[in-house]
Amino acid sequence: MTARKHIVVIGAGFGGLAVAKGLGRRGVDVTLIDRQNHHLFQPLLYQVATAGLSPADIAAPIRAIVRHLPNIRVMLDRVVGIDRQAKQVWLQSGDIVEYDMLVVATGARHSYFGHDDWAALAPGLKTIDDATALRRKVLLSLERAEVASDPDQRKALLTYIVVGGGPTGVEMAGAIAELARCGVRRDFRSITPHCSRVILIEAGPRLLQSFPDALSASAKAALEQLGVEVQLATQVEAIHRTGVKTSQSFIQASTIVWAAGVQASDAARWLQVTPDRAGRVPVGPDLRLRDDPAIFVIGDTACCPDETGRPLPGVAPVAKQQGAYVARTILAGLTPSGSVTPKPFVYRNFGNLATIGRHRAVADFGRFRLSGHLAWFVWCVVHIWFLTGHRNRIMVGANWLWSYLTFARSARLITGDPGGETMSPQPKSESPPWQVVSTLRKST
Amino acid sequence: MTARKHIVVIGAGFGGLAVAKGLGRRGVDVTLIDRQNHHLFQPLLYQVATAGLSPADIAAPIRAIVRHLPNIRVMLDRVVGIDRQAKQVWLQSGDIVEYDMLVVATGARHSYFGHDDWAALAPGLKTIDDATALRRKVLLSLERAEVASDPDQRKALLTYIVVGGGPTGVEMAGAIAELARCGVRRDFRSITPHCSRVILIEAGPRLLQSFPDALSASAKAALEQLGVEVQLATQVEAIHRTGVKTSQSFIQASTIVWAAGVQASDAARWLQVTPDRAGRVPVGPDLRLRDDPAIFVIGDTACCPDETGRPLPGVAPVAKQQGAYVARTILAGLTPSGSVTPKPFVYRNFGNLATIGRHRAVADFGRFRLSGHLAWFVWCVVHIWFLTGHRNRIMVGANWLWSYLTFARSARLITGDPGGETMSPQPKSESPPWQVVSTLRKST
Repeated sequence: MTARKHIVVIGAGFGGLAVAKGLGRRGVDVTLIDRQNHHLFQPLLYQVATAGLSPADIAAPIRAIVRHLPNIRVMLDRVVGIDRQAKQVWLQSGDIVEYDMLVVATGARHSYFGHDDWAALAPGLKTIDDATALRRKVLLSLERAEVASDPDQRKALLTYIVVGGGPTGVEMAGAIAELARCGVRRDFRSITPHCSRVILIEAGPRLLQSFPDALSASAKAALEQLGVEVQLATQVEAIHRTGVKTSQSFIQASTIVWAAGVQASDAARWLQVTPDRAGRVPVGPDLRLRDDPAIFVIGDTACCPDETGRPLPGVAPVAKQQGAYVARTILAGLTPSGSVTPKPFVYRNFGNLATIGRHRAVADFGRFRLSGHLAWFVWCVVHIWFLTGHRNRIMVGANWLWSYLTFARSARLITGDPGGETMSPQPKSESPPWQVVSTLRKST
Repeated sequence: MTARKHIVVIGAGFGGLAVAKGLGRRGVDVTLIDRQNHHLFQPLLYQVATAGLSPADIAAPIRAIVRHLPNIRVMLDRVVGIDRQAKQVWLQSGDIVEYDMLVVATGARHSYFGHDDWAALAPGLKTIDDATALRRKVLLSLERAEVASDPDQRKALLTYIVVGGGPTGVEMAGAIAELARCGVRRDFRSITPHCSRVILIEAGPRLLQSFPDALSASAKAALEQLGVEVQLATQVEAIHRTGVKTSQSFIQASTIVWAAGVQASDAARWLQVTPDRAGRVPVGPDLRLRDDPAIFVIGDTACCPDETGRPLPGVAPVAKQQGAYVARTILAGLTPSGSVTPKPFVYRNFGNLATIGRHRAVADFGRFRLSGHLAWFVWCVVHIWFLTGHRNRIMVGANWLWSYLTFARSARLITGDPGGETMSPQPKSESPPWQVVSTLRKST
């Protein structure tokens, strides 16, 4: 009898978790490594950023998810390298983990197309900390605008630019428009909904390019109804601390959100393979490295062509189906007939969804397409269904019902103030309203 | 006719909010200044620190709380000084706010009895950020212990010391014991509940000194049943990065929590009055400064003697009753008979409560006293009742019910990692278990 195989899975996103679950309670040992202690339901991250949900509502501890699978061991650590000859994964803590089979599912991060200096000025949304930082920025901009006396400064504070018209950008723009308008209407005394401006910039000719034309048009109309200005066929040329320079104009804005492009994680460097243009690792039809059958790469990290030869999109269903496929392939390899070449991976696309604001969405299920309220209802049901953990399903459902009935945003907290940053002194040009009578530091 | 009076309230804790609500929709203008955008329900902060609740469950945006009171204006800012001659409050942003009457309700912070260097090693719990930082520390200690190979290092990682045996310390110790034991039992593979040690250190002869003797004894017994070691009559002599030196011994520990003493905020300095030993501002029987009838000081910031001459305790009910009293006094002062000296403030003590772990508590209602399950049930009802906002009441209730039924801690997130700190390299003395085979940096 041979020893039990040790499968190492790097990354506990949708793909990595699907592998681990598929191998749970089977005759293998699994080590699941992630740099976070929680699995994150990224499709709802924009709702944390716009104060609709709490971080804990869309994240579940990885240990709790695989608690009932005794052959899975969870390690909180960062990968710093992979030694393919020795079959070892090197970790930041100094530990080295040996593997028989390795699954790399480390996802993607934002790509600024060579302008890495934009990252600090126009952050993207990938982690809980990204989301709470953006929430802080948006809420502080409203607080600062409430006391700002210079009309130009106030206008810049209340201008929000979202770069990128894919599902994330569309959802972000809709949610910011609602937060900056509904919140303002009731809670602030000196700013009104009409003061704030939300601009969605897309380089291509239409929004949601993975959807059919008609749904792109519905999404644009729904956003405009919420007060979002949609600028199509507009390139971002530069991003400054004060705003965005596009191919059309310069727009002053204090809050800029990046939703324009992603780039795979460092996996290609660890594996010493040549990535594609988006940093993804090319894989064979069975999702293995072509020259190393012990290594699978899946999800946003992999470049896996579909039947037409185009790379599969970086969405959760692809990663989940690939994870399940890899688990089946590994288990099949353990049986006596294991040397048979497995069938290639085929992605089954069940549909695409994107939501716009409080009760609209677009849904593309191939044969039938939806937009408006019914699509939004489908969107809610699907997202609650796929959330990890019963507790999170209940909490998100309750939160949404509460927001729907009351228009309230329940997680409107400014946190993470590194001491003293709350309201930094601002140059003022004229006396602010009401009892505020003068300024300490007049610029002369 | 005289102009409308402008009342400035500094601090939107229990005291400041009670003043603002008492003055809502009355013939005065109110400006409520706080350095946070949210009112925090501090009595439940320890549950955020121990991953039982989310920050948004116990915090509510100040603007939302006073939304329906149009004469109240909210400012997010920090106070840097008060000019009593000119009747002005100076803010960090550079703004100056003039007042007719001023209410100072800025609360308290931790006191390290002259050892301010202990603050970084043994943080206390006053803000949401304190709570998420402690949550991060406790959860990371478990993760690190899971992979630690040196038995001494592992023991230190799994030792938690709480300094101070008042209600906060007792609640903290109970909650940490449950987190480190229940969580461990099911989610970790190589550490077990018996590995972890929770120690509560109290300088006095008994826990909960504001409660009757019998309830102190019940609390001690309940804590010991949860596995907490209670060390009474023990002074902390020094705190180091590696542990705590007490009058009895040196205890190695990676997590140390301070719940031993508080000190009033900087109000005495702003007001240029001589504070008492705990930094509190002495006030007259009507809660005004003795030499300045335009300024009230309430809550933890004030030193207000009870009938026996002892200062009132720094608890929420005192602050709330004082806030309501000040609002009534201000409104009475606006009437033609307003020059009559108001009745002195009298605190009505309805009882004291403290909870210990999952379903025990002690309650002291003067004539009758409770401990055990019934007291715990009373504790739950009282705390949900006093929470701010219906939404938070529902969410906290649902979370508690869920935890009670499933033993789960729903907010077990490690967040706020400032990049790369997840698992820093640790010196290892022997090879860790399972597939981890060697270390990168062997200390020779």
